Amino acid sequence: MDQNVHFMTIASHDLDATRQFYETGAMWASLLDVPGEIIFYQVAPGTVLSFFDADKFAQDAGLPAAPAVSGVTLAHNTSSRDDVKIIVSQLEVAGGTVSKPAQDGAFGGVFHAHVTDPNGVIWEIAHNPFWDVADDGTVLLSEPS
Amino acid sequence: MDQNVHFMTIASHDLDATRQFYETGAMWASLLDVPGEIIFYQVAPGTVLSFFDADKFAQDAGLPAAPAVSGVTLAHNTSSRDDVKIIVSQLEVAGGTVSKPAQDGAFGGVFHAHVTDPNGVIWEIAHNPFWDVADDGTVLLSEPS
Repeated sequence: MDQNVHFMTIASHDLDATRQFYETGAMWASLLDVPGEIIFYQVAPGTVLSFFDADKFAQDAGLPAAPAVSGVTLAHNTSSRDDVKIIVSQLEVAGGTVSKPAQDGAFGGVFHAHVTDPNGVIWEIAHNPFWDVADDGTVLLSEPS
Repeated sequence: MDQNVHFMTIASHDLDATRQFYETGAMWASLLDVPGEIIFYQVAPGTVLSFFDADKFAQDAGLPAAPAVSGVTLAHNTSSRDDVKIIVSQLEVAGGTVSKPAQDGAFGGVFHAHVTDPNGVIWEIAHNPFWDVADDGTVLLSEPS
């Protein structure tokens, strides 16, 4: 099994609020949008984040009831601390809930905030000087001293 | 906000079982592994999937209790239908729970299975002839006729 995630799919109880959050707040464009069913956004080379109507998600997964999202965060790293604040306020205006205002994190040097999307996904918006991506896409993590 | 997910983080109640599933079952190699805390796997250019001790996840997110994962699936597409069956049996041996044995999906042409990881993440292992990735990483989705 190659080391690739091709789709992350999130159960959504409100696709319209989801579209508002990602397209007005994050300024993303969908790859494919089937109203009432599923919305796809490309989020990395070869990788798509999709929001799937929660009833249909349950049916597809053989679950007894439409699930609420828990236990998952997604993170977006910015090039500056100011960008963290700007993005958080854009996401809040578009329907996000700020659960951790922009602040220094527990690990040295990280400056971050948490914004929950309409589905319960916690977004960490962060400026992290210990993270970088090489030209070939390799993620470089260094540990703060 | 650029259209990029840099980290997906999953709350884990058993990092040892997680390591077994991903390293023995999926044959993945970690980018960084801090026993008892967090394991990072690169899963796309610039994108990392991490498993974070659930108590620490709760503390970081300001949640009242360690969450169980629900409402999220991850998908891996294979180049053949046979590969779906091979990968599913490797993941099952490594501690996965097969909730949907390999079968034709509800949408035309897809052949898939569901395997739940030790944390509650539902993995869809699929052969999907309506999905492709261009050389520049752009995901190409076509709808079955």
